[in-house]
Amino acid sequence: MSSYEEPILDVAHLGHIELLTPKIEESVDFFKNVMGMEVVHQKKQSMYLRACRDYESYSLKLTESKEPGLGHMAMRTYSSKTLERRALAIEESGFGIGWSDGDFGHGKSYQFTDPDGHTMELYYETEKYNPPPHLVPALKNQPQKCTSRGVCVKQLDHINLFASDVDQNSQFMRKTLGCKLSEQIILDIGKQGGAWLHLTNKAYEIAYTLDSTGAKGRLHHITYNVDSREAVLQAADVFLENGVFIEFPPSKHAIQQTYAMYVYEPGGTRIEICHGGYSITAPDWEPITWTEAERAKGQAWGNKTVPTFHTYGTPNII
Amino acid sequence: MSSYEEPILDVAHLGHIELLTPKIEESVDFFKNVMGMEVVHQKKQSMYLRACRDYESYSLKLTESKEPGLGHMAMRTYSSKTLERRALAIEESGFGIGWSDGDFGHGKSYQFTDPDGHTMELYYETEKYNPPPHLVPALKNQPQKCTSRGVCVKQLDHINLFASDVDQNSQFMRKTLGCKLSEQIILDIGKQGGAWLHLTNKAYEIAYTLDSTGAKGRLHHITYNVDSREAVLQAADVFLENGVFIEFPPSKHAIQQTYAMYVYEPGGTRIEICHGGYSITAPDWEPITWTEAERAKGQAWGNKTVPTFHTYGTPNII
Amino acid sequence: MSSYEEPILDVAHLGHIELLTPKIEESVDFFKNVMGMEVVHQKKQSMYLRACRDYESYSLKLTESKEPGLGHMAMRTYSSKTLERRALAIEESGFGIGWSDGDFGHGKSYQFTDPDGHTMELYYETEKYNPPPHLVPALKNQPQKCTSRGVCVKQLDHINLFASDVDQNSQFMRKTLGCKLSEQIILDIGKQGGAWLHLTNKAYEIAYTLDSTGAKGRLHHITYNVDSREAVLQAADVFLENGVFIEFPPSKHAIQQTYAMYVYEPGGTRIEICHGGYSITAPDWEPITWTEAERAKGQAWGNKTVPTFHTYGTPNII
Amino acid sequence: MSSYEEPILDVAHLGHIELLTPKIEESVDFFKNVMGMEVVHQKKQSMYLRACRDYESYSLKLTESKEPGLGHMAMRTYSSKTLERRALAIEESGFGIGWSDGDFGHGKSYQFTDPDGHTMELYYETEKYNPPPHLVPALKNQPQKCTSRGVCVKQLDHINLFASDVDQNSQFMRKTLGCKLSEQIILDIGKQGGAWLHLTNKAYEIAYTLDSTGAKGRLHHITYNVDSREAVLQAADVFLENGVFIEFPPSKHAIQQTYAMYVYEPGGTRIEICHGGYSITAPDWEPITWTEAERAKGQAWGNKTVPTFHTYGTPNII
Repeated sequence: MSSYEEPILDVAHLGHIELLTPKIEESVDFFKNVMGMEVVHQKKQSMYLRACRDYESYSLKLTESKEPGLGHMAMRTYSSKTLERRALAIEESGFGIGWSDGDFGHGKSYQFTDPDGHTMELYYETEKYNPPPHLVPALKNQPQKCTSRGVCVKQLDHINLFASDVDQNSQFMRKTLGCKLSEQIILDIGKQGGAWLHLTNKAYEIAYTLDSTGAKGRLHHITYNVDSREAVLQAADVFLENGVFIEFPPSKHAIQQTYAMYVYEPGGTRIEICHGGYSITAPDWEPITWTEAERAKGQAWGNKTVPTFHTYGTPNII
Repeated sequence: MSSYEEPILDVAHLGHIELLTPKIEESVDFFKNVMGMEVVHQKKQSMYLRACRDYESYSLKLTESKEPGLGHMAMRTYSSKTLERRALAIEESGFGIGWSDGDFGHGKSYQFTDPDGHTMELYYETEKYNPPPHLVPALKNQPQKCTSRGVCVKQLDHINLFASDVDQNSQFMRKTLGCKLSEQIILDIGKQGGAWLHLTNKAYEIAYTLDSTGAKGRLHHITYNVDSREAVLQAADVFLENGVFIEFPPSKHAIQQTYAMYVYEPGGTRIEICHGGYSITAPDWEPITWTEAERAKGQAWGNKTVPTFHTYGTPNII
Repeated sequence: MSSYEEPILDVAHLGHIELLTPKIEESVDFFKNVMGMEVVHQKKQSMYLRACRDYESYSLKLTESKEPGLGHMAMRTYSSKTLERRALAIEESGFGIGWSDGDFGHGKSYQFTDPDGHTMELYYETEKYNPPPHLVPALKNQPQKCTSRGVCVKQLDHINLFASDVDQNSQFMRKTLGCKLSEQIILDIGKQGGAWLHLTNKAYEIAYTLDSTGAKGRLHHITYNVDSREAVLQAADVFLENGVFIEFPPSKHAIQQTYAMYVYEPGGTRIEICHGGYSITAPDWEPITWTEAERAKGQAWGNKTVPTFHTYGTPNII
Repeated sequence: MSSYEEPILDVAHLGHIELLTPKIEESVDFFKNVMGMEVVHQKKQSMYLRACRDYESYSLKLTESKEPGLGHMAMRTYSSKTLERRALAIEESGFGIGWSDGDFGHGKSYQFTDPDGHTMELYYETEKYNPPPHLVPALKNQPQKCTSRGVCVKQLDHINLFASDVDQNSQFMRKTLGCKLSEQIILDIGKQGGAWLHLTNKAYEIAYTLDSTGAKGRLHHITYNVDSREAVLQAADVFLENGVFIEFPPSKHAIQQTYAMYVYEPGGTRIEICHGGYSITAPDWEPITWTEAERAKGQAWGNKTVPTFHTYGTPNII
């Protein structure tokens, strides 16, 4: 029987991410001047930023904190009705926190955690971005003029969460939110070492990978995309010229085929710049499964994953 | 009220296109050796071809014919159940033709036309591509090894149909099939000059543009995509070196922001090579409307659209 | 007999260009913020700017003036001795002006004009660029940190001079300075319609094209290069977003194979952004000759040259 | 005093390279079908191949042999006169072998070795490539139609020779042939660990790096270039899909700034695909010196050089 017959199509897409940072000024400077994003709002210890192609008012909230880490991640539903429906389902799962009145840029949200403890929220009502005069785009099908500053990232692409138990969390996201599984690593012990989930046709927006330290609720990285592989290479030069630590220089992933690189922002969070990957339009997609032996071959072109990839997360307890 | 509340989510994506060609051998040679596609099947006067990232067995059927033109275009539904539901809706619209037993690579299909007379079909059962040994890909998340031959196109991207009445046809596709409108041209007389429709998150898979000759049922072009704007430029050199007529050299479209170029295949059909465009994830996307005055500014960087774009279609009755 | 036997190898390369502009502030803003160059010096009505890969202290001098136009162009010799030798040869040609004490960034220079009246100078002593702390590059084989601002041009590439008589001027540059001819257009009347000259292995640094208005001493354009064709496309978007007039969107030239686009800076001078072209290492290169019939085919991919290319120059007397 | 005053400008450029291979058929298949080169001639156990932008008839000679290794490398002089002059200088150095009648594609040559024992030759008379009808290019300023096959390399770029004593060899090339030094590694012991030499404005055509095994006369790699960094990435996919061993995936070098990747051809020789680097037009260029401490930082973006880079050469005696 096709798994399509009763799909949950209630959650539309990843909306924004809140990062905690112990160095708020340096972090804001990094995202604004090196990444090329715009600050759109400030509220208490939080700054709200956007990439030029994000259609909502922001995709990143930076909040001052003693330790770096994930504040929360937010997903937008298809409608108010589907928001209510998902809130109910989450509540039944036992992982619900409750309703919030919303935040800058979006209306009421239902807050919860995944089994690993990452804080999440669902919302529907949102403010689409309305650019100030100096950021009105030349083409009316774009939300904002590109900044042409630094890396000039285009859009929030995906989030990768570290998890102490990948199966449990990926199952939760599939059953409770309607995420679909595109690819996975199955370890020799039979458990997932990684799971790539999607809500749109893009093959992944939320990934879980195994935290080899056994910690719970940590963040692996968040990702902004650019328009070409050449732009990823240009980004590498921008990071080099600006003294940003490059943990993993540009290379092609075997899983998802994304062309990507990783750096640390000043607060300590790992940031990925990517281009590519693929779309899934088949309603009956069969998840791709990678074994440990296959993973041992390294990335697509044979380079090894950097060891810190399996241990460094935020909050950082290596 | 949000237009999302009662969406039709029955049709998944554009599947394949049948082109008629009076020069079947030259056309096959073009798609195989210049475009870099693979011939997967032959049946009577028809040849079936695929691009390396198409997940189904083929995306192009070339059929020998006295005149060039569109044989038919096919869309895959999400399930057998949604196929039945759409067939019923089309039948009620009065544009139904009836059920077919299917063709190479897919099961039974429901055939119909749009109001302009373009032949279409819906199907669900399909054969996913199973590559022969010499085409097994290095990465298991790809359907086929890339050919590295000529333009080396990656995937069927979209189709553009000429129509004598764009409003009537785009309305039919929206109401009967559940296509969503991403962008449109509204002429000074208040009617659509063009309409860009999508089924997936990609902002267009089916476009209608006004046939200024007043003809009905003609094809404007079909499009295969490549992985970068650089690859579109490389394609231009491949076409130049192979003596293919370039009607419109690479430039950036204002509408949809696609980077694209256009050539004629030997049978006479206009073929586009493209990269880019954008995704729509907002469930409450407001269609972008372009006026005649805005269109008069030309493409994104100011170059004018070639005049034949408004008159040349297949069958070709300039 | 090889034409190499007695080559003149006294002039090393194009050094800098002085542009006149009636809108000095807007012009400086354009070159700094849109082109991504750095202002390194100011003297009276002149501003000195550089691109990040120029090894000398500057490549562009902007001087306030009532009319736009070419102030002068300067070439660096291989040595003081070859500077003296060329000065003598120019003096003998009758086009010499005389010695100058030099200017910001370079030592004494010999000034002269070509037969059409374009002011030129030769110099040897120069100040290599010594970046201030915030512009020290990450890699020691680069003269400056890239600015990652706007188009972020890399290097002065070439100059194109309009001439009332191309043959006379290209002959002067070959005989008196040792420029070599890589490509030319020979009109049906037997005279040169264009001549592309080089001093280094790059196939052109100085081009002459026929001014169809019959004017003398005008400038067609100056050119800065970027690192990829993708970067030329990115430049087009930067110009679009910044309201810069695009006269000729990105396309590939048949002559020289350069991928290029053209805009007007605020003062009125045509500016080209380019990537590519080829190198000539053969000591016995035979110049490529294009006929009018061949030129009628348009640029490499068939697009026509914009008509203003044959008439618009600075000072602008269309 | 400027070092320019008495330069040796007798040798024009690197011409071709002869590689020995124990697997001639597989090697020819690799260079033809994976690299996209053309076979232009066959003579006894040797095959002659070319890349589409090489202006001479060939740039690679493959000769069947029991062991892989460098047959010889050849450089073209500016004229017959400068060929005689260099032959004399080499003879005086004690490393001369003697005159040869020439080979397919070029006239008489003077053969010699460098101090490490790599066989070299100088020649002037050459056959420029005259393409057969199916390889006539669309643009007359190109020597050949591009093949659009596999990696589709464009031109022989440079050669890297392993040496037991880098100083001795780089001095020989500078004093006897007129090569100029652009960059070098100076080890803590005060000796060169690497030396990059050039004849044209391109910053290196011949490099020497230290063979940490102490062997003499080995080849590190030869390099063909492509037109963009994107094309290097495309090459990586072609190699992956064709089962070619990738020793070093695409990354940016700190030295010379080249974007490059390395594979082994079937006979065992390391082959580099590259794009980029820079040009030197300054007549008074000061060589860039890298210390061991600077080299310890890895490549430009921090990735480490693969260990086999210091030990694997052909003939291969790890």
